[in-house]
Formats: sequence, C-alpha cells, structure tokens
Amino acid sequence: MNDNTGEKSRLTLLGLGAMGTALARAWLAAGHPLTVWNRTSSRAEPFAAEGAAVAGTAAEAVAASDLVVVCLLDDVSVGEALADADLRGKDLVDLTTGTPAQARARAEWAEKRGARFLDGGIMAVPPTIGTPGSGGYVFYSGSRALFEARHSALAIPAGTRYVGEDPGFAALHDVALLSAMTGMFAGVSHAFALIRDKDIAPKDFAPLVVDWLTAMAPYAYGVADHLESGDYTKGVVSNLAMMVEGNSTLLRTAGEQGVSAELLTPFMALMERRLADGHGDEGTTGVIDLLTR
Amino acid sequence: MNDNTGEKSRLTLLGLGAMGTALARAWLAAGHPLTVWNRTSSRAEPFAAEGAAVAGTAAEAVAASDLVVVCLLDDVSVGEALADADLRGKDLVDLTTGTPAQARARAEWAEKRGARFLDGGIMAVPPTIGTPGSGGYVFYSGSRALFEARHSALAIPAGTRYVGEDPGFAALHDVALLSAMTGMFAGVSHAFALIRDKDIAPKDFAPLVVDWLTAMAPYAYGVADHLESGDYTKGVVSNLAMMVEGNSTLLRTAGEQGVSAELLTPFMALMERRLADGHGDEGTTGVIDLLTR
Repeated sequence: MNDNTGEKSRLTLLGLGAMGTALARAWLAAGHPLTVWNRTSSRAEPFAAEGAAVAGTAAEAVAASDLVVVCLLDDVSVGEALADADLRGKDLVDLTTGTPAQARARAEWAEKRGARFLDGGIMAVPPTIGTPGSGGYVFYSGSRALFEARHSALAIPAGTRYVGEDPGFAALHDVALLSAMTGMFAGVSHAFALIRDKDIAPKDFAPLVVDWLTAMAPYAYGVADHLESGDYTKGVVSNLAMMVEGNSTLLRTAGEQGVSAELLTPFMALMERRLADGHGDEGTTGVIDLLTR
Repeated sequence: MNDNTGEKSRLTLLGLGAMGTALARAWLAAGHPLTVWNRTSSRAEPFAAEGAAVAGTAAEAVAASDLVVVCLLDDVSVGEALADADLRGKDLVDLTTGTPAQARARAEWAEKRGARFLDGGIMAVPPTIGTPGSGGYVFYSGSRALFEARHSALAIPAGTRYVGEDPGFAALHDVALLSAMTGMFAGVSHAFALIRDKDIAPKDFAPLVVDWLTAMAPYAYGVADHLESGDYTKGVVSNLAMMVEGNSTLLRTAGEQGVSAELLTPFMALMERRLADGHGDEGTTGVIDLLTR
C-alpha cells in the first residue's frame, strides 16, 4: 500500500515509551490503521480501546504493515526486537535514539534483510507530537525513495527535514543540535548561579536571558561563513584578543559571587590557546580547529 | 544643565577606543555638545573636525560638563584618569567594563568626591551604537536620580535598562548574560566540529542551529520558575535521568566523529552528580545548586 493514494496507509509501531505513545496517538488521531507492539505488553494493551491492533510479538506486528516504525530504548533493543521478523519488502523507519555509526550499521543490516531503511532523529518532546505549529520536527536520512513514498504518514507526528542519503546524517544532525543546546544550558546555569540570592528575581532575569541568547544565536551564521571561506576574521567585531580580555572579568565576577566557573573555563582555555597561536584578530571559530585536531 | 529642558545637554566623554568612538559619534550626530579626551591624544584630535571640543587633560574635560561619561580600558584606568579631576556636583556615568565589586567601590569613591554615580554595562557592539532598533542596550545601576535626570542623553547611543540602586547590578547583569552566551558559543563550536568535513555544508547547518537554539532559549523561563518555587521538577518533560542517558549518545557520537567533548563534559558531570544525589525527576536546575555550594 502506498500512502499517496489518498487512503491512510497501515503502519506498525514498535515501542510505546513516552515518545512511542505520543506517536501512536498522533497516527490514530489522523485515522491511520495502526498495529502496535511493546516488549512490556501492559503498555500496549490500552491502545486496543483506542482502535489499534495489538500484536503479541514484534514479528507479528511487522507482518501486519508494509511501513514499520521503530521507537525503542536504544539500537540494541532494535536488533533484539526485529531478530525474528521478516523484513522483506518492508519500509523500516528507525526513530530510536542512537549515533551516526549505529544508524549506518542498522541501515546495512536492514537492507541485507530486504527492507528499505530510513533513520530519524526526533527534535521534539512527546507533548508537542501531533501538534502542528509546535516547531517540533524529525530529521530523516537514508532511503530518499522511502521518505518520499511515506511522507504523508511521516508528516503526521511532526514536521520533517530530510538531510541526505547517508543514514547517519539524521543522528548526526540530532546530536549536533543537542550538543549546542547542552552548551547553552550550561551557560544559562552559570548565569542564574551568578544572580542567585542577590536581590535579582529569577523571573525578572529570565526574559533578559532569553532575549540575549535569541539575539546572539545568529553567531552560528558567522561561524558557518568562517568555515566556508576559511577566513576566520571575516566580519569579526569582538575579536579573540578582546574576548579573552573580557573573560578575565567573567572569571573575577564568578569569584566575587562565589560561583564555580567550571562550565566556562574549558572554552576560555581553548580561546587562549588559539590567541597564543597568533590568531587574536579572529572570532572564536578557530576553537573548532582545536576540537577536531 | 538638565537635559529635560529640551536643550541638548553638554557631555564629556573620557575614552575613545572602539566603543568610545561609537558613543562620541552617536552623541555628536544627535546634536549634543561634546568634550572628549583620550590618553593617547592622536585618537581624540580627529573629533575636533566633527564638532567636539578636545580637552588636553582628563581634568579639563571633566570641568567642561556636568555629565561625565567614562569608557576606558578597565577600572584601574578610570581611577588614574580621574585622579586629578574635580568631581564635585558632577554626574559620573561609568561604562567601563568591570566586575560588580569594582563598580561598588567606584561608586563609593565617586560619592566621596561629591559626584552622583551610575554604572553601565553595554550589551551592544560598536557598530550598533546609535542605531535605533538594533536591539543593543545598556544596563544601568546606581543613582536612580542621575539615571532619570540624564535619560534623554543616555538613550541616544542605545536602549537603557535600569536594574537597581546597587551600583554592582549593571555589571552583574552584563557578566551573567555574557556568561550565558559563552556557554552557547561553546555548544555551537562543538556542534560545528561534529558536522565538519562530513558533506554537510556549514551554511546549511547554521540556520538549523539558530532555529533550534532560539526555540530552546525559553528553557531559562523554566529555570526561573524552578528557582522561584524551589520545586525543580515543575513542568519538566525531559528529566535528568533521561538527559543523562542521552548524554552517552552525545559522547559516543563525539568519539565517532573524532571531536573532543571537553566543552560538554563539565555540565554532564554535574548532571550526573545531581542524578546520583537522587534527583532524576528534576530538570537541570539542580546543577545551579552544585555551582554555588
């Protein structure tokens, strides 16, 4: 069955954790016939009352549909769940969190068993799944033919962004954005630590943080321009020499406020190394060279 | 002279580095009579042709106006420049970068010499000074009376945000936002290192980063809510246990891509400590407790 016919294609979903549950509800709400399976069957049974077919084994669930979506704990769980399934002619979409190398190996594994394979990296949280306009989306990479043939079903839970034939690219994009976010969260934590117990209300401080980070996020365009051109001085206003000077004020202030600077010092140390290497007129892009050498 | 009369008040500006130069041009363009001084006089002389009075000494420059703005290299330079100046009856606005403790000490110093004192922390870069709508602004703290009396002149170069009578608060807000930004830049650097040389064009990746960080910046509202309420589990969707699990995928991916994870590991280590302390149902706010203990 092809979901470009106007009919809602039947799907199978393996895995009913928080994310799988949200995915199942989104497809059911959109009228897609759905077969579900979960290793712990008590999590699957309630879906019978919501109109899903509940399979007793993963292999049975896979047999029920041509489009099989997997959203399990980790890649090992995917291998275990699908060990006995007949994947010939199936379209396998793997939304399980993993690394690029895991996705590539899983793609090869699936293709050897006769399936087309698409990996997905979900940039959304369960409460926003099935909510158009939430901004949540899923990176997809691998079989473009699968992505195009199944797009109308894949687009139900969240927006879609296809990032390439390399099955590892969805995971790579996913992890890269989560890594950027981790750094931002670290910086925000340091900032709140500084103002804490200083007669500055966190609720008054938060909008300043949000506005400032939103205004500074386009820094990434400058970094991209540097990497594309190879000229790390292009368009730099606050150069590395100035920023390293400013870092000393950041560190002294942390000391005054009794806040450990451990979340900031690794980046500052790389900025200083790059400066010491004679790149004071650059921005911070050269730090990327130090991370990858 | 009071600048609420409709007449443009005379200002004195000490310091003509990149920022001082931008400030001088903004006030001149707005029609404020301006006296400038710079330690290296060759940087001051060109302003004579632009309509400014160029003073030979800092003391002469201070004597020329009731409103004296200082934008020097650091707080030590401020003390040196003003050592011989008569500050009685002056309104002194210090835009020099420094720590909260330096601003408080400088406020006390200025008040002993008979001046009202306002400290400023500039959240803008020189090219945006004097450009309404650029989003740049200056945090001010210290004498509210000075801030209100001089607001029309202070509002010329950039927006103004008065954050309290404590003269240290402008610097504290300034440093806190720069610290948050430093964390974000570190995260962005790691993200670009991951995708580098992997057939993903930096210029295609940058908008994804900007959109994602903009969407995630409101995390700060959740942190504020946690700190205000003392309940760090409030509204948490991805809890600490899930995030720590996710961190292992981030670290494995960094390893696969040959990227050092040194910019992310300190925050991850604190997340793990908080989790080990039994707070797996919280978000990351508890990390702030670990930074300030």
